[in-house]
Amino acid sequence: MPLTARDPNESDQEIDAGSVADIRPLLTEIDHVAIAVHDLGDAIDSYREAFGATVDHRETVESDGVEEAMLKVAESYIQLLTPTRDDSPVARYLDKRGEGLHHIAYRVDDCATVLEHLKAQGHRVIDEHPRPGSRGTTVAFVHPKALHGTLIELVEEGLPH
Amino acid sequence: MPLTARDPNESDQEIDAGSVADIRPLLTEIDHVAIAVHDLGDAIDSYREAFGATVDHRETVESDGVEEAMLKVAESYIQLLTPTRDDSPVARYLDKRGEGLHHIAYRVDDCATVLEHLKAQGHRVIDEHPRPGSRGTTVAFVHPKALHGTLIELVEEGLPH
Repeated sequence: MPLTARDPNESDQEIDAGSVADIRPLLTEIDHVAIAVHDLGDAIDSYREAFGATVDHRETVESDGVEEAMLKVAESYIQLLTPTRDDSPVARYLDKRGEGLHHIAYRVDDCATVLEHLKAQGHRVIDEHPRPGSRGTTVAFVHPKALHGTLIELVEEGLPH
Repeated sequence: MPLTARDPNESDQEIDAGSVADIRPLLTEIDHVAIAVHDLGDAIDSYREAFGATVDHRETVESDGVEEAMLKVAESYIQLLTPTRDDSPVARYLDKRGEGLHHIAYRVDDCATVLEHLKAQGHRVIDEHPRPGSRGTTVAFVHPKALHGTLIELVEEGLPH
């Protein structure tokens, strides 16, 4: 029988040889859950009134066409996210699906290493290389087609090396 | 001018009088983020290979028509969720929207108090009263129309009082 990608022995060997995930868990925290909303001020009010959650950080990221408000929950955040222009991905998301869960961000120790690991596994990514995110972080987005329909952001604390 | 629900003064008074959220933040942790998937085994494999994430708990909840696998990330979980029958809400979600982020669960100290607080604010809920969840927890779901299109689960550790 030829060794194909579906041969379980070959798959094991590939993972043994190339996987950083074999060594230790790569996700250190749910960094944030992002919720796309039409009106950021209104959403902030809702979360304060419903849960006593308050804004820890607020930032406009012009390159992504979004304004975000981060509400701290233990070591994680709820990220309320609204578009700043009509052609931003979040604006298109709202047009298509309405308000709701937009993406999940996992905190990692080394964004570049995890990104390369996923690419080596053949996963489709949005950012080929880590880039600056909000709050002085380093981030990379993984395509929702890679892992069960979920848009995933990798977040490393601190700016790109 | 008559006092209506939209009168800002009246709204403030209502919150002052009835809000537990004024006292302290009610959310103590992002308990889990739930991802609806077609094949639980396949999704577990994906997350292990991609992130070194392993199953901390696995359970079938017949009343909800789901099987779940919980992958621990710090004090939170990624919940991979698949339907066990065609008429479960998760099956309908998958039919309509495909795989992806299904709901977010916030950990709270007292599920009943937070649920009553939300109901008192006029928010639509799915569970009128807290009920047993998986892992011996007490849970209640809040309707996605209540808070910006997001299906929210409140999770209290321990069984209902």
